[in-house]
Amino acid sequence: MKIGLMGLGTVGTGVVHLIDQNGRNIEKKIGEKIEIKKILVKDPNKKRTPLAEGKITFNAEDILEDEEIDVVVEVMGKEHPALEYITKALQKGKHVVTANKEVIAKHGKELIKLATEKKVHLLYEASVGGGIPIIRPLKQCLAANKIYEIKGILNGTTNYILTEMKEKGLDFDDVLKDAQQKGYAEADPTDDIEGFDAARKLAILCMLAFNKFVLPEKIYTKGISFISKSDIQYAEEMGYTIKLLAYARIDEKERLEAWVHPVMIRKTNPLNGVNGVFNAILVDGNAVGEVMFYGQGAGMMPTASAVVADIMDVKNHIVIQNGCEEVDLIPIEDTFSKYYIRLIAFDRPGVMSKITGVLGNKGISLLSVVQKGSLGETAEIVLVTHIANTGKVLEALKEIEELKEVEKIESVIKVRED
Amino acid sequence: MKIGLMGLGTVGTGVVHLIDQNGRNIEKKIGEKIEIKKILVKDPNKKRTPLAEGKITFNAEDILEDEEIDVVVEVMGKEHPALEYITKALQKGKHVVTANKEVIAKHGKELIKLATEKKVHLLYEASVGGGIPIIRPLKQCLAANKIYEIKGILNGTTNYILTEMKEKGLDFDDVLKDAQQKGYAEADPTDDIEGFDAARKLAILCMLAFNKFVLPEKIYTKGISFISKSDIQYAEEMGYTIKLLAYARIDEKERLEAWVHPVMIRKTNPLNGVNGVFNAILVDGNAVGEVMFYGQGAGMMPTASAVVADIMDVKNHIVIQNGCEEVDLIPIEDTFSKYYIRLIAFDRPGVMSKITGVLGNKGISLLSVVQKGSLGETAEIVLVTHIANTGKVLEALKEIEELKEVEKIESVIKVRED
Repeated sequence: MKIGLMGLGTVGTGVVHLIDQNGRNIEKKIGEKIEIKKILVKDPNKKRTPLAEGKITFNAEDILEDEEIDVVVEVMGKEHPALEYITKALQKGKHVVTANKEVIAKHGKELIKLATEKKVHLLYEASVGGGIPIIRPLKQCLAANKIYEIKGILNGTTNYILTEMKEKGLDFDDVLKDAQQKGYAEADPTDDIEGFDAARKLAILCMLAFNKFVLPEKIYTKGISFISKSDIQYAEEMGYTIKLLAYARIDEKERLEAWVHPVMIRKTNPLNGVNGVFNAILVDGNAVGEVMFYGQGAGMMPTASAVVADIMDVKNHIVIQNGCEEVDLIPIEDTFSKYYIRLIAFDRPGVMSKITGVLGNKGISLLSVVQKGSLGETAEIVLVTHIANTGKVLEALKEIEELKEVEKIESVIKVRED
Repeated sequence: MKIGLMGLGTVGTGVVHLIDQNGRNIEKKIGEKIEIKKILVKDPNKKRTPLAEGKITFNAEDILEDEEIDVVVEVMGKEHPALEYITKALQKGKHVVTANKEVIAKHGKELIKLATEKKVHLLYEASVGGGIPIIRPLKQCLAANKIYEIKGILNGTTNYILTEMKEKGLDFDDVLKDAQQKGYAEADPTDDIEGFDAARKLAILCMLAFNKFVLPEKIYTKGISFISKSDIQYAEEMGYTIKLLAYARIDEKERLEAWVHPVMIRKTNPLNGVNGVFNAILVDGNAVGEVMFYGQGAGMMPTASAVVADIMDVKNHIVIQNGCEEVDLIPIEDTFSKYYIRLIAFDRPGVMSKITGVLGNKGISLLSVVQKGSLGETAEIVLVTHIANTGKVLEALKEIEELKEVEKIESVIKVRED
């Protein structure tokens, strides 16, 4: 079994090492040796693992045109030129294993169609949750279920930041800096902290769990950069933990709701124990009930573990490809949730009645209101709503923000009891 | 695809309902209808689901000799006659799906051999962890890993009891009675509370994760019936939670350590959040790191979910059968652990020095010693050891129990920091 490896960054190097290290075991399991024949890299001057020696090429065609190569393993990351290489490999009748969530989230539908036409495998277990087995369990183990809900902590960087803020009582910016120094966050952390990375993975999960294809940019996404120490404290006092949740469900009418948003979850929720860079995916099926998958969502060896398992499955012909239909999401305005809202208002008589008045006019009823000691001229007000229409909440927030009594709405966080 | 169902108790009824309820989805996924042709039952007078009408038989041969039946689904439970029926079905060239942990734990090795010879599938996902996907993830998704450690909460009854004791401050006997009333514990709860059920599941996991076959009765097993309110409180004070852990690992010399024992685990351990009747399995692989699978370990529909997924895999020809070798365990005396020991001693001068003297003589050093207020004539003493040789600890416990100053050793619980 001859492999063409595209990319020799963190994940690619992990794949090379894992095949070397566990090679004998792997051979015993699939009855054949996995041989990495060629490795595509960009930079001629970079220092690389000695295991790559004699295999390096700078030209993708060396792999794509090599008749001996059965499987192309794409671990370059980024949308381009990975998409073009994957497409070409499939067209040439080669199996493809990829860890590229951007390509799969954006182009999964047509790539799966192409793979099905060409009767080859397209496998992407590593694109969601790193080494956590999730794609096969969803497709195979829970195959007898109708899955109706997914809740995931799909991004290690944001989960690390929220965990550190909570445990050490630190502010967002300080933890982000620390995370960048430790290599848990990138120099430009936007994709992670604004939730875009989680939205891509959620789009892939929707494809797998519901056979519904939705472009990641259509998923309503709110990140965690606004969250402050004081939100963490309020959550704690009320018995919740704040997590960046990627959420999707199918409603009674088979419509898809999907969003990425900070959520206060109950301490009894199994996701509450998912800390640091760990990821977890909680799946609800109509027969199995709640099932959770937990592990390291990123990193060299965990991700390589998923890539190599995919390569082994190509050999074992273990693939279930499901088609999927492109769908529109339920508009975020038509969804329902409890909301926690923290704002700074000028400490004047009547301010509370104005704010609660706006909410009341929109038909939003309140579970609790807390005003904590005046901060000089201003006061901090925390409102928690009952389950409310999100469209009405967004309208109300806009009106509240425009009140002259209100300085700033600082935080809007969903609240869930499940 | 025609099925012969053996057994129509809780799980069997779940299978019938699930195939009825999700039938169209299942058909779409495997391209064929699953038809339950015959159902073997024992009692002619029992009230049954209307879906079973016209299919009931009282004679196993009706299924085993029916040439049209491709797949035998055994959900009767108990070792006999399930073993004989499964064996005969395999010999007849039929695929077998079973939820029977007793049969698989005790006879898995020869049944797998027979299935391999006859080129049929033997699938048993439902035998461990109910609906939690664990067998396929271990065999497929983590296939590129060398797995070296498994820690599981594999029994819902004991986990429910420990959770209730902790949350409500109740004693073991009271919670057991309540669990029996709620149907979470059987009238004769021995198999669950003494850890035998967990030991069987652990034996199956050893087969899957390590390819090592060990009879469940050879696994050192200690249940939870001795655990009292005060153990739960001490654990809490020291920052631990008590769980009944099923543990297995492969050491550097490829030897197998396996036991079932109450363990104090750290609050940061992901198993800490596994409460009530839920089960979880934490697997450590050399590439993927820690991965956890969580869900309902028993119950009608979760177990049926796993059984039906197995049936679907037969159709999809998705099976990886690994052989396994029978091995001896590392004798429990040669293993190492920290221990928590709680005992009642007569409140006399010199008692502490005698007890700690015994431990010292065996080379066991202490992490902490607490003596709490005298209980009339007696005092409660809690000792926590450093990591010690289990053989020496067992010897020391015997000697301490024989001291005339000691009334009774009440509890021995392992302590782990991972």
